Amino acid sequence: MSTLTPFFRRLTPPQFLAVGFAVSIIAGAFLLYLPISTSVPISWIDALFTAASAATVTGLVVVDTETHFTVFGELILMILIKMGGLGLMSLAVLIVLALGKKMGLRERMLVQESFNQPTPGGMIRLAKMLLIFSFSMELAATLILAVRWVPEYGWGYGLFTSLFHAVSAFNNAGFSLWSSSLTAYAGDPLINVVITILFITGGIGFTVVYDAIKTKKFRHLSLHSKMMIIGTLVLNAGAALTVFLLEYGNPATLGALDMQEKLWTSYFQAVTPRTAGFNTIDISALEPSTLTVMMVLMFIGAGSASTGSGIKLTTFLVIILAAYTYLRGRKEPAAFGRRIESNVVTRALAIAVISLILVILSIFVLTITEDAPYLVIVFEAFSAFGTVGLSMGLTYELSTAGKFIIMILMIVGRIGPVTLAFALAKGELSNVRYPKGDVFTG
Amino acid sequence: MSTLTPFFRRLTPPQFLAVGFAVSIIAGAFLLYLPISTSVPISWIDALFTAASAATVTGLVVVDTETHFTVFGELILMILIKMGGLGLMSLAVLIVLALGKKMGLRERMLVQESFNQPTPGGMIRLAKMLLIFSFSMELAATLILAVRWVPEYGWGYGLFTSLFHAVSAFNNAGFSLWSSSLTAYAGDPLINVVITILFITGGIGFTVVYDAIKTKKFRHLSLHSKMMIIGTLVLNAGAALTVFLLEYGNPATLGALDMQEKLWTSYFQAVTPRTAGFNTIDISALEPSTLTVMMVLMFIGAGSASTGSGIKLTTFLVIILAAYTYLRGRKEPAAFGRRIESNVVTRALAIAVISLILVILSIFVLTITEDAPYLVIVFEAFSAFGTVGLSMGLTYELSTAGKFIIMILMIVGRIGPVTLAFALAKGELSNVRYPKGDVFTG
Ligand SMILES: [K+]
Ligand SMILES: [K+]
Repeated sequence: MSTLTPFFRRLTPPQFLAVGFAVSIIAGAFLLYLPISTSVPISWIDALFTAASAATVTGLVVVDTETHFTVFGELILMILIKMGGLGLMSLAVLIVLALGKKMGLRERMLVQESFNQPTPGGMIRLAKMLLIFSFSMELAATLILAVRWVPEYGWGYGLFTSLFHAVSAFNNAGFSLWSSSLTAYAGDPLINVVITILFITGGIGFTVVYDAIKTKKFRHLSLHSKMMIIGTLVLNAGAALTVFLLEYGNPATLGALDMQEKLWTSYFQAVTPRTAGFNTIDISALEPSTLTVMMVLMFIGAGSASTGSGIKLTTFLVIILAAYTYLRGRKEPAAFGRRIESNVVTRALAIAVISLILVILSIFVLTITEDAPYLVIVFEAFSAFGTVGLSMGLTYELSTAGKFIIMILMIVGRIGPVTLAFALAKGELSNVRYPKGDVFTG
Repeated sequence: MSTLTPFFRRLTPPQFLAVGFAVSIIAGAFLLYLPISTSVPISWIDALFTAASAATVTGLVVVDTETHFTVFGELILMILIKMGGLGLMSLAVLIVLALGKKMGLRERMLVQESFNQPTPGGMIRLAKMLLIFSFSMELAATLILAVRWVPEYGWGYGLFTSLFHAVSAFNNAGFSLWSSSLTAYAGDPLINVVITILFITGGIGFTVVYDAIKTKKFRHLSLHSKMMIIGTLVLNAGAALTVFLLEYGNPATLGALDMQEKLWTSYFQAVTPRTAGFNTIDISALEPSTLTVMMVLMFIGAGSASTGSGIKLTTFLVIILAAYTYLRGRKEPAAFGRRIESNVVTRALAIAVISLILVILSIFVLTITEDAPYLVIVFEAFSAFGTVGLSMGLTYELSTAGKFIIMILMIVGRIGPVTLAFALAKGELSNVRYPKGDVFTG
């Protein structure tokens, strides 16, 4: 942050994020367009799309990574992914703080407290720890993956592909150096365990990891950490069971596999929609029921201040709790013996509503610009918004207009529609209080 | 209400509604199953489905009304529609009052005040006016429709079909005596105007009509009435323009019509998804983009205490206003110089979330039980929940399991998922207040 020019200094954190994103995507597109990056020439729009997909850690590809990019091009992709994942994780911390500032002293203290970092000095320490944590996770994973891939591909490419997939997995980017993603390793315990631990750790949010390391005992964790940990466990286990049951008899997916592969594949496909984007199975061959569950998971997404996107698991849980509380006739939603304040509920509501409107609008436009079955279009839109990167195959066939829609979805999905709205807003605050009016709902 | 037995007296209004519904659907199914009702024998499940579709004023049909039912059967249908529409309109008034009671004296007064009926005596007068209003609307419409249909079908059937369509339209039931619904009258101004005035008036909610008649000046209307009137105008005009633009070049829909028919048909298809269910065009031939817009409109639905369903227009508007307010950094949502209290926002949130979960769950199950394109299934689910009755053709092909799913959607959609939840709840109230917890969303 020491190289910030006066121009950048004047930007609010959300504005800084939006500008930084635009700059890195355009620079990345330029580098990917160079002949040194590609083994087959690609168009400007495809270079831009690929850079956006990498910087937003989505993983949707309009050109096959394996056959179109040189190792240099793949290196550019990896750097974009690392910047996209890390930059956003640390910036997310700043944004939460900035929102805290906007919310007034009491809420700011609340935010800082939940990081267990009462001073600005503590925040810098937190950022340092984030750097150390992400690099060590990626390094350790590279070494373990190398055990499988160095014997298969030799030292040079074996190590590079291990590093690439470790970075791509930890940052929830979903980019693979193989056209078939990780389908060749569907039943491989080592690959399944390492890759999923990477993207679950990256996706749960660093503040949760930090809280867990520092606090050690579950009952001393913050409400946020408790909700993320229990929510992740419940959602992942439920999703794995659902995929297993729904796909058990599908000959194009689980049907053809033995029991061990069935179990690993169910687990992998259950955790990847939130928002990792690797697959070990042909997504377009899944049952419509499984794809429906996946779309819900993609919309929910990962944790706040993480390498994942979506509306965020806590947003989803707060909304469910608020609705449940209303039905039970209680005053305020609560979890783990702590109440959730109404401004948190309102924020969750705003995020979910604006996200849903954005996705529905995109689906609407894509049904006009693209010629594909409805499910394929809807799935693509949810995948792009959640920066998941799973596709039923539409990405390769997108029209130019469709590519722009998906790019907008990825960027807005990654920054977060509400954060982006704050970045673009004039910041005019009004506290006019009107007399009460009556409205009946439902 | 004077014939209530002690058993019924002990029920809360939401419970009374649920029981009354079950009884009338089963009795209706029994009558429709009788040989005197059908010209072609129908199965038990189809009789039950048809009775449920009529009593919930939906209009989805598993057997073609024109070719399967005798005039006696059609009479049964009309009575079920009239009971379903009227009973729910007046019961809805009672439920709003009952919820008001639950909400405490202050809120009850607020509810009564908004009806301009401060005493129980006034409420009875309101119910009487509702009866008079609905019968006079249906009678007047019957006479006008007879001008077109008596010359075409003779006195007997001409008058009957006019009455049937008037009742079906005012109660937003969507049942037609013709297999092709009203497609034969796509460009007929008389039919277009009469039918749409009926279902818009029935769907806006009687309290709005009553408020408008009593208050006369727009600026003296309640906030609820203002939101309903302006919201209906804006949504209907926007939808008509959208349908016109999207379908202009579609040879299977507007493309084949002359300009006058194009305009009437756009208008009709724009207003019918909220929740009338008649059509003057082949729904399955519409563009996926148009169908996407229609699904949104079907989910939004009509007005509170009306003959329509859906989450209700005011619920939708309150949610949009709350999200907008949050983005602008304001404290409380407001419209027309009146603020909307947080308990109204919470209720709107609960309705929308529970409805969406219900529809998504139904789509999930239908993708397992039915063998049809995704769009066809999704459209059917939204249509059933909104008790709209438009279909891309799936209703005729539903499996038995699918028929039960659609029946549940129609009944829950008509009663309202939140009202139903209150009916089933034990009513345990808890005011334990937990210490505050911190959650980050988005
Ligand atoms: K991803
Ligand atoms: K209807």
